[in-house]
Amino acid sequence: MIRVGIIGATGYAGAEIARILLGHPEAEVVWYGSKSYVGEEFSNVFGSLFSIINDKCLDDNMEELADKVDVIFTATPQGLCASLINEEILNKVKVIDLSADFRLKDVKVYEEWYKIEHKAPEFIDEAVYGLCEINRDKIKGARLVANPGCYTTCSILTAYPLIKEGLIDPDTLIVDALSGVTGAGRGAKVANLFCEVNESCKPYGVASHRHTPEIEEQLGYAAGRKMVINFTPHLVPMNRGILATEYASLVKKDGKLPDSSDIRRAYEKYYGDEIFIRLLKDGVYPETRWVQSSNFVDIGFKNDERTGRIIMMGAIDNLIKGAAGQAVQNMNIMFGLNETAGLKLVPKCP
Amino acid sequence: MIRVGIIGATGYAGAEIARILLGHPEAEVVWYGSKSYVGEEFSNVFGSLFSIINDKCLDDNMEELADKVDVIFTATPQGLCASLINEEILNKVKVIDLSADFRLKDVKVYEEWYKIEHKAPEFIDEAVYGLCEINRDKIKGARLVANPGCYTTCSILTAYPLIKEGLIDPDTLIVDALSGVTGAGRGAKVANLFCEVNESCKPYGVASHRHTPEIEEQLGYAAGRKMVINFTPHLVPMNRGILATEYASLVKKDGKLPDSSDIRRAYEKYYGDEIFIRLLKDGVYPETRWVQSSNFVDIGFKNDERTGRIIMMGAIDNLIKGAAGQAVQNMNIMFGLNETAGLKLVPKCP
Amino acid sequence: MIRVGIIGATGYAGAEIARILLGHPEAEVVWYGSKSYVGEEFSNVFGSLFSIINDKCLDDNMEELADKVDVIFTATPQGLCASLINEEILNKVKVIDLSADFRLKDVKVYEEWYKIEHKAPEFIDEAVYGLCEINRDKIKGARLVANPGCYTTCSILTAYPLIKEGLIDPDTLIVDALSGVTGAGRGAKVANLFCEVNESCKPYGVASHRHTPEIEEQLGYAAGRKMVINFTPHLVPMNRGILATEYASLVKKDGKLPDSSDIRRAYEKYYGDEIFIRLLKDGVYPETRWVQSSNFVDIGFKNDERTGRIIMMGAIDNLIKGAAGQAVQNMNIMFGLNETAGLKLVPKCP
Amino acid sequence: MIRVGIIGATGYAGAEIARILLGHPEAEVVWYGSKSYVGEEFSNVFGSLFSIINDKCLDDNMEELADKVDVIFTATPQGLCASLINEEILNKVKVIDLSADFRLKDVKVYEEWYKIEHKAPEFIDEAVYGLCEINRDKIKGARLVANPGCYTTCSILTAYPLIKEGLIDPDTLIVDALSGVTGAGRGAKVANLFCEVNESCKPYGVASHRHTPEIEEQLGYAAGRKMVINFTPHLVPMNRGILATEYASLVKKDGKLPDSSDIRRAYEKYYGDEIFIRLLKDGVYPETRWVQSSNFVDIGFKNDERTGRIIMMGAIDNLIKGAAGQAVQNMNIMFGLNETAGLKLVPKCP
Repeated sequence: MIRVGIIGATGYAGAEIARILLGHPEAEVVWYGSKSYVGEEFSNVFGSLFSIINDKCLDDNMEELADKVDVIFTATPQGLCASLINEEILNKVKVIDLSADFRLKDVKVYEEWYKIEHKAPEFIDEAVYGLCEINRDKIKGARLVANPGCYTTCSILTAYPLIKEGLIDPDTLIVDALSGVTGAGRGAKVANLFCEVNESCKPYGVASHRHTPEIEEQLGYAAGRKMVINFTPHLVPMNRGILATEYASLVKKDGKLPDSSDIRRAYEKYYGDEIFIRLLKDGVYPETRWVQSSNFVDIGFKNDERTGRIIMMGAIDNLIKGAAGQAVQNMNIMFGLNETAGLKLVPKCP
Repeated sequence: MIRVGIIGATGYAGAEIARILLGHPEAEVVWYGSKSYVGEEFSNVFGSLFSIINDKCLDDNMEELADKVDVIFTATPQGLCASLINEEILNKVKVIDLSADFRLKDVKVYEEWYKIEHKAPEFIDEAVYGLCEINRDKIKGARLVANPGCYTTCSILTAYPLIKEGLIDPDTLIVDALSGVTGAGRGAKVANLFCEVNESCKPYGVASHRHTPEIEEQLGYAAGRKMVINFTPHLVPMNRGILATEYASLVKKDGKLPDSSDIRRAYEKYYGDEIFIRLLKDGVYPETRWVQSSNFVDIGFKNDERTGRIIMMGAIDNLIKGAAGQAVQNMNIMFGLNETAGLKLVPKCP
Repeated sequence: MIRVGIIGATGYAGAEIARILLGHPEAEVVWYGSKSYVGEEFSNVFGSLFSIINDKCLDDNMEELADKVDVIFTATPQGLCASLINEEILNKVKVIDLSADFRLKDVKVYEEWYKIEHKAPEFIDEAVYGLCEINRDKIKGARLVANPGCYTTCSILTAYPLIKEGLIDPDTLIVDALSGVTGAGRGAKVANLFCEVNESCKPYGVASHRHTPEIEEQLGYAAGRKMVINFTPHLVPMNRGILATEYASLVKKDGKLPDSSDIRRAYEKYYGDEIFIRLLKDGVYPETRWVQSSNFVDIGFKNDERTGRIIMMGAIDNLIKGAAGQAVQNMNIMFGLNETAGLKLVPKCP
Repeated sequence: MIRVGIIGATGYAGAEIARILLGHPEAEVVWYGSKSYVGEEFSNVFGSLFSIINDKCLDDNMEELADKVDVIFTATPQGLCASLINEEILNKVKVIDLSADFRLKDVKVYEEWYKIEHKAPEFIDEAVYGLCEINRDKIKGARLVANPGCYTTCSILTAYPLIKEGLIDPDTLIVDALSGVTGAGRGAKVANLFCEVNESCKPYGVASHRHTPEIEEQLGYAAGRKMVINFTPHLVPMNRGILATEYASLVKKDGKLPDSSDIRRAYEKYYGDEIFIRLLKDGVYPETRWVQSSNFVDIGFKNDERTGRIIMMGAIDNLIKGAAGQAVQNMNIMFGLNETAGLKLVPKCP
C-alpha cells in the first residue's frame, strides 16, 4: 500500500485527491495537511466525507511528512512547494506538485508571470511536466512531477496532435476557454461569492493569464519552435468543468488543406490508444457535463472550409483531469501501477 | 453475473441505474429499454457514457425481456409497469418497479391520487415496499418490489424511529421538502426549462402531492395507526437532492418531554448499524451537497424546547437513494448479494 | 429633493437602495458610505452602475452626514446604528435602520439572540417597526424606523390577517422559509462561495435564527398575546428571493372550520387595497421569480381539509420588499410622499 | 399614445417587449398575440405580470392587427413574419421584425442558412437593418425594420469601429461568444431542460450558426468588402446575457501597429455620444451581470503586444439590447420619439 500525504488537503484539488484515493486499490492517504484547519476533523470541512474519512487535519511540515509517506501531493498556492522542498526530501519521497512551481523550465518566465521569486530553481530541470499522455515515459522515473494546470491540460491536449503533425500554423493558435468556479479555489474572496459569480460570465486575465506561458512552452516542444498564443479564460457559473475552444489556420500540404479525415487521423495517431481521451464522432462537440466527475478529456473538431481554420474543442473536469485525477495518474505511472488505478470514474450526468 | 434489463433507461432514474451498475461486480445491463430512442445508441442520449456503454436502445417489450434477463427495473411513468406485468413474467424474473404502481396497498387510494385505473391490482398484495432499511427481510424473498418514491424515502427515514418509538405525536407531523429538478423527469415540458426553473423556488402539489399517501401509509405502519400529514414539496434550482425538514410535537413520557439524548438513542436504535444512514453530530444539519452522488441518507435533528417540537431533517440524492441506488440496493437484497455491492459511492462535493 | 445618505452602500441592500433611488422622482443619494471602499468610485464596486453613478465612496461618519442629508439609511451589520445614533442626529435627520438594532422592543431579547450589548436602548421605545402595510400610521411621524428583516417581512405579512382575525391557532404556527444567497450579505466568507452554495440546499439557524423573536413579537401584537413559533430558514442556490411556507391549525368558529372563502375574505380585508401585496388566485402559489426585482409580496394559500391546517405561502424579493424597497417605502411614508414613488418596479422574469 | 401589437408575446423576447413598454411614456400594448395561449390571460403565462397586465392573449392575425395598432412587433420563429406581411399591412402600420426574415439582403444566403423558402423577398430591399447605433438615419423613415440577432448585435458593435477605421484585418476576425439560455427560446425541448443545461457549457452551431452571415454582411459594409469570419456560440448556464470575445490582428499604419490609445480613440469616435454603449476603462472587461436587465452594451479591449492581436470584448442582455430593448429603441427612432424613452433601465446586480 502506497502511503500518501497531501499538503493542502482542504482545498478543492486536495480534497479531490483524498476522495479519489478512497477508491484506489493500492494507495491510502495517511496525512491530511492543511494550513487553516490543523487539528480539526477533515470531515468537518468536507461533510460529504463524514463517516468515511475520520482523520484530523495535520500541518504542512514536509520534512516530517517525508518520513511517513511514499508520495506527497502539494495542492497549495504557488511558491509553497518550492519553499519547502529539498534534496533530502526528494531522496525519501516522490513529490507531485499541483502548483506552478516546477512547470516552467525558464525561471525568469516563472518569476515574470507569477511575480514571486522562485525558492528552489535547482530542481526545475529535474522536474518532469506531468502531462501523462505526452510525457508518460519521463514521468516513470521522476522524483518530482509538476502537475499541469487545469486550463493547460485541456488546451494542450486539444491541439497537440495537430501541432505535432504540422497540420496547423502555430502562430495562429487562439485558445478561448471557459472554467467552472472551483478553478478559482476555496479562499474567501468577495469575487468568488455565489452572488458575484452566479448569473454572469466574464473574461479575466486577458492576455496575461499565468497558464499562457505553460501552454506556449509545451506546445512549443511539439511545434519544434517557440510559440506565442492568445489565451483568454472566462469564468462561468458552474462548479466544475473546463471547455477550450481553439482556433488555428490549417496548413497546406502538397498544395491542399487537410480535410476532416486528415485531422481525425492525426488525433487517432496520438490518442487512439489513450483510455482517458475520447475523440468524439463527427459533428459532436464536447460538453463539460459529459466529462464531469471523470478523468476524461473529450475532444471534437470542426473543419471550417469557409475560413480555412480548424476549430478544436476539448472538455475536462478541472478538478480531476485538470488537477487531482491527473495527479493520481502521475502517481500511478511513477509507481509502476496500472495507470487507470482509482481513475475508472464514470462521468455523472446530470 | 446477474443479467439486468432496464425499461425506461433513457430517463434520469433509468440512466442512473445503468451508470451505477457499471461499477457493480455481479450485475450487468443487457437491455437498455426506451420508448423514444429505440435503435439509437444509448451514449447518443447520455454523452457521458460514450466509449463506456456501446449498446443501442431497445424497446420495452417486457415479455421478451423476461426471457433474457434475471431482473427488470421499470423506471417509467405510473401505469406502465402495471399494464405489462403478469404471472408468467414474475415466474421468470424479478421486477423492481420504480413507479408508484405497487407502492400503495389500497388500490382506491392509488386510483384517487394518481387518477388512473390500476391494471394489475392482483399483484399489489404480493409486492413488497422496497424501503431497504425498514423492510429488508420481506424484500429478500420478493418477486416484485415497489421501489419507494424519492420524497417518500427521505421523509419516512427521517421520521421513522421517532414515530416507531412513540416519541412524537403522529397527528402533528408536517413534512416540508425541497427537491432538485431531476425529480421532475426528463420530459420536454415548458415548466422544467432552464429559464423557468433557474433563480426561483416554488411550492407545488400543496396538500395534493402523490407521495403523501405513500408517506402516510408507511409511517402509519410504524405508528400502529392511520396517519394524516401535511406534505409540501418545493422545487429548487439544482440538479439533484432532496431535503426534508419535518416538524412534530414531542410526546411526554412519565410527565416529561424526551430530550436530545432520548431522541438520538431512538435514531441509533434503528440506524446504528445502517451503512447508508449517517446520523449527524449534534448541531450539524444535512445539506444536499454532502450526499450528492451517493446512496447516503444524512439525518440531523434539533430539539426545540421553546415550542416542544422536534425538527427532523434528512437529505438524500433523489436519483440514488431516492431512485436508482435504492433500486440496486433492493436488487442486492433480493439476490442475496452484499447489500452495498456497487453502492459504495463517495459523495462528490463540490 | 430629499437628500439621502446611505451607510453601508457597498453591501447588497445598500447598493439596492442606491439603485432604486435612481428612479425616485423626489430623492437623490448624496453620500455613499462604506467601510471597505472609502475613496473608491462606487461604480468600481458595482460595475453595473458605471456611467450612472459617478460618486466616490465616503466613510460612515453619521454626525457629519446628519448635517448634509435629510434621511440616513443604515444598511450595516447589527450594532453599528445603535453605536452611532444620538439625540442630536435624530433632531436633524430621519434614520431608517436596516439592521436589527431597533426592531425588538425588549432589549434583553435583543441581547440574548444577537449576543451583543445594545448601545442605545434609550431609542428602542421611540423606534417604529417599519412594516409599512401594518404600521403605516405610526411610521408617518417617526424619526427612527426599524426596517424589518427579510424573512420577517415575508413571514409576518403571509400570516398576519389570519392571526389578526383569529382564524388560526397561534401556538401551531410553523414557518419554513427559503432564501436566496444575497440574504447572507457580501462579506468574504467561505460558506458563501459559489462552489459551497451552488447545487445544494441546507437548513440553518434551526430553532435559533434571529428573525424568530421578531416574527413572534409582531405576530404576537396581532394575536393579542405572546407567541412562540418554529421558524426554519433554508439557503437555496439563487441570488434573490424569499419563499415562506407556513402551517397552522385552523380554529373552529361556531362549531365549524373556516373554509377557503373565509380565509380569502380575511386576506382581502387587510390587503385588498394594498398595492404591493398580490393575493394570488385559488390554486396559484407564489414563486420567487414572479416577484423578483419588485416590491411585491405574493401570497397564496391552501386549505387542507384532510388535516385541518391552512398552508400559507408568501414570496418576496429579499433585497427589495425584504430590505431596500421597504426602506424606500418607509421613507416615502415618513416624508409624506406617494408611497409608491420610485417603487413601481415590474418584476423581471426570467 | 402609440398603439402596439406584439405577435409572439408569450415568448421570452415578446414578453420582454411587453414588460419594457409598461414603462414607456408614449406607447402601450393593445394586442398580446400568441399561438399557444389564445384566450388565456397573459399573466397566467407570466405570473410576474399578475395585477399589472390584465389582458388575454389574442391570435396572430396580422391583417386584423394592422387596423388596430400603429406598430407591430413580430417576436416569432423565422418565416412567420415573411409569410404574413404584405403591402397593405405596411401601408397601415410599421413593422419591427425580431426574426431573421429581413436581416439578410441576399435571399439565397437566407435560404441556405435557414433552410426555408423566403415568402416575401420583395420586401427585403426595403427593410432596414435595425442596429440603431449604426443605422439610425435609415431607421427613421423605415416601414419595416429587421431587428438584429442577439449574438449579432453584440458581435458587430464590439468590432465595428476598429473594422470601420481599418485598424484590424477583417480576414482574421474570430468571434467566440457565450449566451444565457433565454437565447434558446421558450419552446419545450429536452435540450433546454434545466438538468440538461445546468452545470455545463457547450459550443454549438460551430461554423454553421445562422448569425454568422448576418455578422459578416454588416461588418462587411464597414470593411468595404466581403468578410468571412469564424463565429462560435456557446451555451452557458445563466438566464440572460451575451458575452462576445473577439480576436483580430492589428494592421500596421505607417509601419507601426496601433496602440491602446489609437484603439480607444476609434471606439470613442463612433460611440462617444452613444448613451447605450459604455466604453469601459482600461483593464476593465465586460461581465454580463453588469448589463443585465438594461439596454447597455459594455465594451472593453486588450491590446496584446505579444501577439499583435487585439482582444475585443462586449456584453449585452440578450433579451434587451439583443432583442426587445433594441426593438423598442427602433420604435422610438421610427416614431421620432426620444430614443431612450422607456429604456433608461438601470442594470440590476446581483
